[in-house]
Amino acid sequence: MFRKIPTQRPSTPLLDGIADPDDLRGLDEHQLPQLATELREFLLYSVGQTGGHFGAGLGVVELTVALHYIYNTPDDRLVWDVGHQCYPHKILTGRRERMLSMRKAGGLAGFPKREESPYDTFGVGHSSTSISAALGMAIAARQQGIDRRTVAVIGDGAMTAGMAFEAITHASHTGANMLVVLNDNQMSISKNTGGLNTYFSKIWASKTYNQLRSGGKSVLQKFPGPAKEIASRLEEYMKGMVSPATLFEELGFNYIGPIDGHDLDVLVPTLRNLRELDGPQMLHIMTQKGKGFAPAEQDPVGFHAISKIEPDDTGNKPAPVKKGPKYQDIFGQWLCDEASDCDKLVAITPAMCEGSGMVEYARRFEDRFYDVAIAEQHALTLAAGMACDGLKPVVAIYSTFLQRAYDQLIHDIALQNLDVTFGIDRAGLVGEDGPTHAGAFDLSFLRCIPNMVIMAPADEDETRQLLHTAYHYPGPAAVRYPRGTGPGVDIQAKMHCLPIGKGRQLRSGQSVAIVNFGTLLSAASEAAQALNATLADMRFVKPLDTALLDELAANHDLIVTLEENVIAGGAGSAVTEYLNSRDIDLPVLQLGLPDRFVDHGKHGVLLSEVGLDANGIEHSIRNRMTALKLLPDSAAS
Amino acid sequence: MFRKIPTQRPSTPLLDGIADPDDLRGLDEHQLPQLATELREFLLYSVGQTGGHFGAGLGVVELTVALHYIYNTPDDRLVWDVGHQCYPHKILTGRRERMLSMRKAGGLAGFPKREESPYDTFGVGHSSTSISAALGMAIAARQQGIDRRTVAVIGDGAMTAGMAFEAITHASHTGANMLVVLNDNQMSISKNTGGLNTYFSKIWASKTYNQLRSGGKSVLQKFPGPAKEIASRLEEYMKGMVSPATLFEELGFNYIGPIDGHDLDVLVPTLRNLRELDGPQMLHIMTQKGKGFAPAEQDPVGFHAISKIEPDDTGNKPAPVKKGPKYQDIFGQWLCDEASDCDKLVAITPAMCEGSGMVEYARRFEDRFYDVAIAEQHALTLAAGMACDGLKPVVAIYSTFLQRAYDQLIHDIALQNLDVTFGIDRAGLVGEDGPTHAGAFDLSFLRCIPNMVIMAPADEDETRQLLHTAYHYPGPAAVRYPRGTGPGVDIQAKMHCLPIGKGRQLRSGQSVAIVNFGTLLSAASEAAQALNATLADMRFVKPLDTALLDELAANHDLIVTLEENVIAGGAGSAVTEYLNSRDIDLPVLQLGLPDRFVDHGKHGVLLSEVGLDANGIEHSIRNRMTALKLLPDSAAS
Repeated sequence: MFRKIPTQRPSTPLLDGIADPDDLRGLDEHQLPQLATELREFLLYSVGQTGGHFGAGLGVVELTVALHYIYNTPDDRLVWDVGHQCYPHKILTGRRERMLSMRKAGGLAGFPKREESPYDTFGVGHSSTSISAALGMAIAARQQGIDRRTVAVIGDGAMTAGMAFEAITHASHTGANMLVVLNDNQMSISKNTGGLNTYFSKIWASKTYNQLRSGGKSVLQKFPGPAKEIASRLEEYMKGMVSPATLFEELGFNYIGPIDGHDLDVLVPTLRNLRELDGPQMLHIMTQKGKGFAPAEQDPVGFHAISKIEPDDTGNKPAPVKKGPKYQDIFGQWLCDEASDCDKLVAITPAMCEGSGMVEYARRFEDRFYDVAIAEQHALTLAAGMACDGLKPVVAIYSTFLQRAYDQLIHDIALQNLDVTFGIDRAGLVGEDGPTHAGAFDLSFLRCIPNMVIMAPADEDETRQLLHTAYHYPGPAAVRYPRGTGPGVDIQAKMHCLPIGKGRQLRSGQSVAIVNFGTLLSAASEAAQALNATLADMRFVKPLDTALLDELAANHDLIVTLEENVIAGGAGSAVTEYLNSRDIDLPVLQLGLPDRFVDHGKHGVLLSEVGLDANGIEHSIRNRMTALKLLPDSAAS
Repeated sequence: MFRKIPTQRPSTPLLDGIADPDDLRGLDEHQLPQLATELREFLLYSVGQTGGHFGAGLGVVELTVALHYIYNTPDDRLVWDVGHQCYPHKILTGRRERMLSMRKAGGLAGFPKREESPYDTFGVGHSSTSISAALGMAIAARQQGIDRRTVAVIGDGAMTAGMAFEAITHASHTGANMLVVLNDNQMSISKNTGGLNTYFSKIWASKTYNQLRSGGKSVLQKFPGPAKEIASRLEEYMKGMVSPATLFEELGFNYIGPIDGHDLDVLVPTLRNLRELDGPQMLHIMTQKGKGFAPAEQDPVGFHAISKIEPDDTGNKPAPVKKGPKYQDIFGQWLCDEASDCDKLVAITPAMCEGSGMVEYARRFEDRFYDVAIAEQHALTLAAGMACDGLKPVVAIYSTFLQRAYDQLIHDIALQNLDVTFGIDRAGLVGEDGPTHAGAFDLSFLRCIPNMVIMAPADEDETRQLLHTAYHYPGPAAVRYPRGTGPGVDIQAKMHCLPIGKGRQLRSGQSVAIVNFGTLLSAASEAAQALNATLADMRFVKPLDTALLDELAANHDLIVTLEENVIAGGAGSAVTEYLNSRDIDLPVLQLGLPDRFVDHGKHGVLLSEVGLDANGIEHSIRNRMTALKLLPDSAAS
């Protein structure tokens, strides 16, 4: 058990000899626990140096060792669900020396990434995709006559998503040769809810399993004979005593477990047997998030991810640098305030209570808080049902996860014009988490939906006031705001509804009008000053402030639209659609995210790369002004 | 058992007295079978007169009677999953005389619709939403202290979707007072696949259930005492003998069944008991799609929906009027031809084998055909996994159902730039099925995704050739085509790849260039002739043919974009985004679907209403030309 995150590179003689899993498979089985210990210590060290996902990786150290020891990776396919558990896997698959570049621009990605390594068979940033992907791979092998095994590793949290269930039922039907390792650590990012969790809890609490845990290997030792026979009898024992008729066997899987996922003496022989079995297999292992690092075992939520550790750190969570409130906390505070005023308010999160800033709300308004687990589709239609019958639901969801519930938004909420409020967090680029978690598309995919009201606040107070406005709008309304902190404006405690579809002009200038939607306002303001341009904070992407646009169009030679969303179909296109509809013929420069997935890195650096910092914006406008002869050539930057 | 669809309005004395469910609840219980018979006959008559969904309604006649008899609708909430089973419900809830307006413009919708009646608690065109919505309603009742019961009726097919599973696990956790009626008719629209189906099949085949069926009420009669006790013991009996440990009890529901869903003597007392129970209840009933009408019982797939019956019809399915091939069949033929040439091709459908024109393919290429049940999310990630390992998957999916798998498209396929081909059917308006099934948004929600290639063929042959082109493009590529038949051009058997991102100019004219994307080409062509306009068939929405656009822009005074997709973010916006990016300043008129949900009705009539028939297009262009002084005022229409 480690109690401190090492700040000096630890000595890892066995690990140092593992250039790739072939080397690992050359070890004797009795060396594996030592390797696991070294791997855990190196993991602690490297994440301490870089920051990043933490608890999940510690929980699968033994599993990662055992899987690469038994399975012939990368020819056998290994798919990690919600890939933030992939750090030990990356260390063992030739990327140990690059671990210090984790989540930095140009460095390793925090999730499996196909371009990075042949061992990363599938990119997994969103949860619950692994069984579907692994089944596709297993079918591909069968169809092409390739003798290959496929393994998906999925957590109990990820198992709550409907698509995991869809994949299990289909896998059962196909009879494909695949193993699903259900890594049951009794938690997802938030505490799970729902029937499946209850089911797991019953198993976890069962007497036999606890015997296994408390007695260490005593259960195993009752059975004589070679490891294979032990494992086989252990399976029968477990199946007979713990789970006589499991959910998964009902669904057609051969179910084995639960076994202790930190005990290599059980894990390795069990996997060795499973690798030889045909058809869909499920191995249920119990692990502990943060395993082997005392502070993380005690606070697995707090240690889901950590920041870089300073050399004198004691292993406690580093105190965050004091800054303005995060947007997620502005949402959380607004939610509490609105709920105090209105007893019809109910709040829904798909397993993102902490990330969405709802901890305080969940505590104070427990009976109006619904964490539905990782179940975005259900979350939205549940909100629709609530809205039908007199409640006023607020759905807190990340932009990228709203993609999971797109049909429910269109078909169940917008089509019926139901009164549901959306707090869309992580809009725009998200920095270190990279393209899987970026909210680069929401303005485009929301804007095409009839009945939607879409707001893009530019600062902290506007976020609060627009959330209040959305809540009191009697139809579907979404407020999108970014990860992290804002420009630092004062937040008014008093809330008032802003007029729907009305922006505000912040600066009067000449020739050029910058029409800003949302979070890039500070950069826009700098550029506007440099260019003596007019600047408007539009607030609403839908409906647009057409009166303001008319006025700006009448008095300027160039309209510049600005948004932290892809240009294709985004807010800028809303402006040009409006101008086209009114036959207003004026040059428009649309600035926004490019038509490519933007890699991970620091948010500010990324914005600068795509030309959306103040300099980039000014530069783009200046070039267009030059082309339009609005500036002398020499004034172009 | 009816053998013929009545073409004269049948005599229905009991039904005629039912103005609303209050009247129904005034009947004696022994009158209900007679009412069911009259309801079935009236349903046969009315659907024969109008066409529409057929088999599902026949299967739930008794259930509908029993639910409205026992539950205090509309105050108790009744949510029908995949609402095409709602016809008997509409007949009993005050809409009997309007049944002959079914699916006609201004008439009744083919699905429950909140605006239509207080008995239609939730609009349900897409499947598997009912449990989530009903749970929302049950929670709303509890939160507001309202004593009310909530019932969701869901088919076994709809139960395969992940979101139904998400809702069940959450309902279990909340302990909400709700009843889920699992209407098990052993089929969805296509044959179900997967573990859940196997599970149901086992129950269906079980000896006890068959005893119940063959012996009629003999099982019931073994138990003396009042109906309540009979039902209660029947439940225990069933639970003990048929399903000792069911899937649903594992998930926390109180599970009762299966019982015969056509036997009112069992159904009514069972529901009466269930209405008194607290917590989440599941009643599993077995029904037969098409029940009571011999031809439909024998061919439930063929009788899923029917066309209007002519007076001399014998009750056999009416022979379709001979027309050109449907687009779905062009897809099906292409799929067979491509599969013959390439053994890497695998095809995936989420339970839409027939609707997607894949029956012949499924027969000929059984080992490369994957019907994953109603599981769109899984379908796409499965395809991603297959594409990772050397197969070339083709996903056949309706535009509106692709909304269910939007995140999987972005995160699992496009982000990894995987080689998956999409045949997107039912793009644009779909006519009688109405807004729940319209494919009005796909160009917008696809266009913002990096790496996507998006094609919009304008006729039958172009559809075939672009499918071939998409298949050979080594990344994600989608071809969108409409419901029904096309303009009737010859289809070339020989396939060739068209150049990516290249359109074609069809007509040279003056002043105005119509830039057409897809299915409205015939109308565009008429308008172009009338106006002597240039006409281009762009074929690709992404990437655009920018060389062609440059040329058109250089030689015309007005660009008109045309698409059967909402204007917001659609293909027309792609054109203006391009022109803006190149600083090409030219008036653009964007024509497409309006920013509202378009109601049901005949496709041609709807297009005309939204100004997208030839006259409407010409009219819009002429007005804009007048405004631009490209025409004398008098030439405006």
